[in-house]
Amino acid sequence: MFTAKIKVTLRKTILDPQGKTVEHSLKSLGYDKISNTRIGKYIEMKIDVNSKEEATVIAEESCRRLLSNPVMEDYEFEIT
Amino acid sequence: MFTAKIKVTLRKTILDPQGKTVEHSLKSLGYDKISNTRIGKYIEMKIDVNSKEEATVIAEESCRRLLSNPVMEDYEFEIT
Repeated sequence: MFTAKIKVTLRKTILDPQGKTVEHSLKSLGYDKISNTRIGKYIEMKIDVNSKEEATVIAEESCRRLLSNPVMEDYEFEIT
Repeated sequence: MFTAKIKVTLRKTILDPQGKTVEHSLKSLGYDKISNTRIGKYIEMKIDVNSKEEATVIAEESCRRLLSNPVMEDYEFEIT
């Protein structure tokens, strides 16, 4: 049994209005040293297979086929 | 200049219907070894201070005051 920890983020060239809004709110709270705030998704799942290689294949395909939008998003994951 | 990489996740005891839906879709695609899918937020931000300690304080306070809901969510972050 492995755990996949997946981050899906907007590509750098895509505007992130949600991130901008959060950053603005943080500045209103007095945190004015913060910049480049970007918001993405974090997905955790258990994968019940016997090898890390199999788990990696399943995580990779899940990201590519369902969890990310390949036009706008990048993904990375670690298997533990 | 430091980068904070923040994960905000639903507490284990809170139901995650979005995670259930994604898991169901993955099963429809044939990935039936996947379970316990949980979906959270991933936030990345630059913090322009001189020490890692200052950056940690700012990230911690941002998580506590704005980025997470302390009743339903946990957070963790790393500063690089």
